[in-house]
Amino acid sequence: MAAAPANSTTFSGDVWAELRLADARDVPHIHSLIHQMAEFELLTDLFAATEELLTSTLFPSPTPPPFTSFTALILDLSPSPAVPDSSSTIDSRRFDLSASPLADPEAAAFASPRGGGRVTAGFVICFPNYSTFLSKPGLYVEDIFVRAPWRRRGLGRMMLSAVAGRAAEIGMGRVEWCVLDWNKNAIDFYEGMGADVLPQWRICRLTGAALDKYKGSQEEAADGKAAA
Amino acid sequence: MAAAPANSTTFSGDVWAELRLADARDVPHIHSLIHQMAEFELLTDLFAATEELLTSTLFPSPTPPPFTSFTALILDLSPSPAVPDSSSTIDSRRFDLSASPLADPEAAAFASPRGGGRVTAGFVICFPNYSTFLSKPGLYVEDIFVRAPWRRRGLGRMMLSAVAGRAAEIGMGRVEWCVLDWNKNAIDFYEGMGADVLPQWRICRLTGAALDKYKGSQEEAADGKAAA
Repeated sequence: MAAAPANSTTFSGDVWAELRLADARDVPHIHSLIHQMAEFELLTDLFAATEELLTSTLFPSPTPPPFTSFTALILDLSPSPAVPDSSSTIDSRRFDLSASPLADPEAAAFASPRGGGRVTAGFVICFPNYSTFLSKPGLYVEDIFVRAPWRRRGLGRMMLSAVAGRAAEIGMGRVEWCVLDWNKNAIDFYEGMGADVLPQWRICRLTGAALDKYKGSQEEAADGKAAA
Repeated sequence: MAAAPANSTTFSGDVWAELRLADARDVPHIHSLIHQMAEFELLTDLFAATEELLTSTLFPSPTPPPFTSFTALILDLSPSPAVPDSSSTIDSRRFDLSASPLADPEAAAFASPRGGGRVTAGFVICFPNYSTFLSKPGLYVEDIFVRAPWRRRGLGRMMLSAVAGRAAEIGMGRVEWCVLDWNKNAIDFYEGMGADVLPQWRICRLTGAALDKYKGSQEEAADGKAAA
């Protein structure tokens, strides 16, 4: 094994992973994680997140119950056993790193606001969607992200399994998310979890100036200017 | 022009199209329209909608404000000028059919519950989604459908324009929907409206038995049975 870089924190032996509901204290880490995700997806040109917007849109007052609206989850890793909190813990599991210790050069920067030596290693953003064919709500997973040093340890599987489990338990008819067609590792992983990758559907997007030009189109009609 | 079939209602001259919020009285027509859409998409094997489920999921009591949760809109056509109702009208426009009268063989079956000779010709189902890169809500259009005799008259454009306009006005950052890659007419139409059709993203879906197997996966973890 390569020596850990200076300032890196090494995790070995047992660590405890907790997937929990996020709150406004997690916003700085969520912001940093979204930026890392944009870098990974080669999409930093689309990155326009700010901590202020994340706070107001993800944690309005009052914040709706989880999975009924936009829902942010945080993955914390802890060197000591997590004590599940029924109000926020979605899932918690022990992982054994003794065969392959893990150096996290960003552990200090991603210290969890929950304290206790916890480190934030990933996040999920999800919200309800709707299937007319099923006439039922489903869950759309907008993002599921694990920081680089923590990948390939089963944490992504834990996160997606927990979210899918919760969706199934509350009666949702399906769980959906998107993947880039060049991300073969991710596609293999998702198919291994039982997901279908739909080959025929394409996403259409109207944004920026192309969207803004539709503002006020209804008022035009009311003025009698519209025609077939 | 071919003669209209028996029992067909012919519309000619001016007709008035109204896109309005649906309510529970529209459920039978919404159910029929979803089935027609499944036929058009060659996806009747996925059709499992029932009127009971549509009513309970689209029109819970109390029904949330439009565009904050699952939102159903109906397109009604009327032979006489529509009087917009500020509580339900999203858009209303006059269409001139004098150059090409239109025979609707299903006009009687799709009589609008609003009466006044109105005929229901289409529907939209949409709901908020969330972009982490923008840190803003957007609007996802799950379905936009016009019955066959009413197509190619500008009604789809009216519906999508009105929905996009409303989304832009309430500060949403983007409007998204999906299209089948073989539906070239639709792709050309959407691109003509300013949308980008994203080539690289694929939808992943976990449903049915593949989803149900994740039920209770969290409890397993709590029992200490999970491992990396």
